Amino acid sequence: MIEIGLIGFGNVGQDIYRILNENGPFINKRIGQPINIKKIAVRSTQKYQHILSDSSLLTTDVNTIINDPTISIIVEVIGGEYPALDYITAALTNKKHVVTANKEVISKHKKHFFKMAHSNEVDIYFEAAVGGGIPIIRSLKVGFGANKINAFYGIVNGTTNYILTKIKQENKDFNTVLKQAQELGFAELDPSMDISGLDAAYKCSILAAVAFKIDSQIDEISYTGIDAITLKDLNYASELGYSIRLLAQGKRLESNEFELHVCPALIPIEHPLSSVHNEFNAVYIIGDQVGESMLMGKGAGGSPTASAIISDIMDISFGMSQKISSRNLETNFQTSSIKPLKHTLSHYYIRLSVKNKPGVLEQISLQFSEKSISIEKIIQKESNSDSAEIVIITNNIPHQHYLEVKEALTNLSVSNAIESSIRLYKNL
Amino acid sequence: MIEIGLIGFGNVGQDIYRILNENGPFINKRIGQPINIKKIAVRSTQKYQHILSDSSLLTTDVNTIINDPTISIIVEVIGGEYPALDYITAALTNKKHVVTANKEVISKHKKHFFKMAHSNEVDIYFEAAVGGGIPIIRSLKVGFGANKINAFYGIVNGTTNYILTKIKQENKDFNTVLKQAQELGFAELDPSMDISGLDAAYKCSILAAVAFKIDSQIDEISYTGIDAITLKDLNYASELGYSIRLLAQGKRLESNEFELHVCPALIPIEHPLSSVHNEFNAVYIIGDQVGESMLMGKGAGGSPTASAIISDIMDISFGMSQKISSRNLETNFQTSSIKPLKHTLSHYYIRLSVKNKPGVLEQISLQFSEKSISIEKIIQKESNSDSAEIVIITNNIPHQHYLEVKEALTNLSVSNAIESSIRLYKNL
Repeated sequence: MIEIGLIGFGNVGQDIYRILNENGPFINKRIGQPINIKKIAVRSTQKYQHILSDSSLLTTDVNTIINDPTISIIVEVIGGEYPALDYITAALTNKKHVVTANKEVISKHKKHFFKMAHSNEVDIYFEAAVGGGIPIIRSLKVGFGANKINAFYGIVNGTTNYILTKIKQENKDFNTVLKQAQELGFAELDPSMDISGLDAAYKCSILAAVAFKIDSQIDEISYTGIDAITLKDLNYASELGYSIRLLAQGKRLESNEFELHVCPALIPIEHPLSSVHNEFNAVYIIGDQVGESMLMGKGAGGSPTASAIISDIMDISFGMSQKISSRNLETNFQTSSIKPLKHTLSHYYIRLSVKNKPGVLEQISLQFSEKSISIEKIIQKESNSDSAEIVIITNNIPHQHYLEVKEALTNLSVSNAIESSIRLYKNL
Repeated sequence: MIEIGLIGFGNVGQDIYRILNENGPFINKRIGQPINIKKIAVRSTQKYQHILSDSSLLTTDVNTIINDPTISIIVEVIGGEYPALDYITAALTNKKHVVTANKEVISKHKKHFFKMAHSNEVDIYFEAAVGGGIPIIRSLKVGFGANKINAFYGIVNGTTNYILTKIKQENKDFNTVLKQAQELGFAELDPSMDISGLDAAYKCSILAAVAFKIDSQIDEISYTGIDAITLKDLNYASELGYSIRLLAQGKRLESNEFELHVCPALIPIEHPLSSVHNEFNAVYIIGDQVGESMLMGKGAGGSPTASAIISDIMDISFGMSQKISSRNLETNFQTSSIKPLKHTLSHYYIRLSVKNKPGVLEQISLQFSEKSISIEKIIQKESNSDSAEIVIITNNIPHQHYLEVKEALTNLSVSNAIESSIRLYKNL
C-alpha cells in the first residue's frame, strides 16, 4: 500500500481523489499495490465534508501529513509560492517524495528542491506544472532523453490561447472575449497573470530547466502578453498566411548561451502550432536526433491536471515497487472482441461517374433512400461530355449499409462506376 | 557499465552507435553509468568495418551476443518476423532485457514476449515500433497511465502520409508521387507493405495492446491502403473542408468490444491530424480524464528511430540503477547565460496609422532603410479618411534595431501611432 498525503482540495485535489476511486482498479494493478489517500490538508474541513464518504480524511493541520511516517508521497495542489515552499521543503526533509502542479514554486526554487531531494534520496515530480495533462516533462526527460534539445516553442497558457482563438473566430474584440472566457471559467477573475505572459514565463523557465538543464530565473526571461493584440492584427496575419500565438520560447545558441522569452508571434498558418485552438496547449520541440516533434493536449482544468499528477505518483510508485515489469509490461491482457468492420459506423464520401442525362440523380438518390441512408451533401458539377461526376456524403451508417448501396449503385444502368469511396469522420 | 549487444547494423543500428558516441557524455550522466555497445551481430563484417573505429565489435555469430553473460540489454534492429522471433525469445530466456523497433514481430508475438519477459524478470521495450521518434508507447503506459483510453487515431505510416501530402500539394497523380518518394528514400522499392495499409495495421495492433490492454492479431484488423486515392478525391475533400489521411484507428465500445481498423478517411481540415504533413507521424488519443491529446513527430528514419531505441535503453538502465533520482532529478545544472532580448533576432510585423497624404510612404520607408532594415512585405489599403493604415513585415533583425526604428517612426510627423508590433517567425 502506498500512502499519499494531499495538501489542498480544490478542483485538482478533488479530481485526484475521484480518479483514484474511478480508475483505481487498473492503476493499482499496474503499480502492483494499491494507492491510498490517507490524509487531506485543507483550511476548513466543513467545506469539503459533503464530497467525502469518509470525512475523517480531512485535517487542518498540514504537519500531521508531513510528519506521518506511513505517508511516502506528498501531493501539493495549493499553488503559489508561499506556504507551498515551506511545505515542500519540510516534506523533502522528512524524506517524502513530492508531486506538485505548482509552476511558480518550481520555477523559483527548482535548484533548491532538486538538491534537497537528491540528498534526501527522494524525488520531486511536476508534470502538471507545464501543459496540464500533456506528458511534456517526462518526454523531455526520457522519451527524448537521447537528444540535445535545440529549441522549444510552447503554447502553455490556455486562457490566452482561448482568447486569441475566439477574437478571430467570433470577430470580437479582446475585452468582450475576455469577459466571455471568465464566464466560461477559461479565465480567472483577475486574469493578469495569464494575460501579461507571467504564467507562461514561469513555465518557460521550467521547460528550460528540463530541456536545457539550466536554472533560469523569472527575471532573466523577458515576457510580453496578449493585451495589445487586436482583431485587426489577427485578420492581417491571416491575410499574410499567419496565425498569432503566445509562445514560450527557448533556443540553444552557440557556447552555452540561450534565448528564453515569452511573446506573441506570427507563425505560418500551416505550422502544427497553428492548429492548436481554444484552451489547448502544445509544446513543439526540436531535438538534434529526433527532429521536430509536438505534444498537444489540455493545458488546464481539474481532470487533465489530476491525470498528470497521478502519472507522477505512478512513476514514483514504479520506483518503489520491486517488480521490474510493472512500469512497462502488459501481463494482464483482457479478453475482448473486435467489432467486425461491417458493423462499424461512419459517414461515407462516394464519388460516382454517371451517365449525363435527365433523371439520373433521381435514380441515384432512390438507391440511398431505399436503404434508409440520408444524403447529407451532394456535389454535381457541370459536364459537357456523356458522363457526369457526382460526389455524395452520407449520414453516419453501418459499413454493411454502405456495401449494400455500393452494390446497388454498381448494378444501376445509369451509373458508369464508383470511382472512389472513403470513410468520413466529422469528429474524431 | 551497461553492456549492450546490437543485432543488425543498418541505418538504425549505425545511428544508435553514432548517437551513443555523440551524446554519450550526457546520456551516461543521466543514467549514472556508461552505456557501452559490446558486440554487433551482422551477416557480413566486411561491409561495416570502415564505419567502426574498432572493427572487433563485429561478429557474424548472434549467439556470442545472446550468450554473453556480461551483456544485459539486447537491441534487435533487423526487422521482420524471422529470425527476430528466435533471437528475442533466446535473449529473454537468457534473462536479457530486449529493445526492438520491429513492429511485425511485436504485433504478432507480444503476448508471448510479455509472458516470457515477466517470468524471466526482464523487460521488453518497443517505443520505436510505432511512430518512430514519438514517445507514444511510454506516454500511453505512464504519461496517460491514469486514463482509460477511449480511442486512438494514428497517422503511423510516413510513406503514405508523404504521398497523400504531395499528390495534393504538387497536383500530381499517385504513381508520379510514389516514384518521387522512392527516389527520395521516403518509400521502399517494394512499397506494398506501406501502401496496402499492412504496416499501419501492425502498428494498430501494438497501439491497441498498449492503449486497451488487448491482444489483437493482424487478421482481426481490417485494413485498406491508399492506392485508390486520387488527386480528384483530395481536391473534392478540400472543397468540402476535409483532408484525407490514412488512419490506424481504435475505439472502445460498450462491454469490452473494440473497433480496430486501418483505412483512409476524410477528416476536418481544422483537426490537428490535418496539420500532419509529409513523412510526419502523429497519434491522437482520447483519454477519459485527460481528453484529447496528440503526439507528433518523425515516424521513420535512422535518427528518430535510434532516438526512441536509446530512450528505451535509458528506461531499462534507470531500473538497473540504484539511484532513485537518476530518472527524474536534474542535479547537474550547467552554467549558462540568457541572451538579452534586444540582441535576439526576429522578423517583425508592424501596423502603423499614418497621415493620408502624398509622400508618406517614402518617409516611412526611409526610416527603415536608414537602419538597414529591409521591408519584406507591405500592405496599404485604400482609405477615405485623414489617416491610412500600413502593415509592414521586416527582414530578420535584432530586437534592438526594431526598437530604434520604432522610436524613429513614433517621432515622425506623418505617423499617428504604431498600433501594433509583433514578432514573426517564418520557421520554428
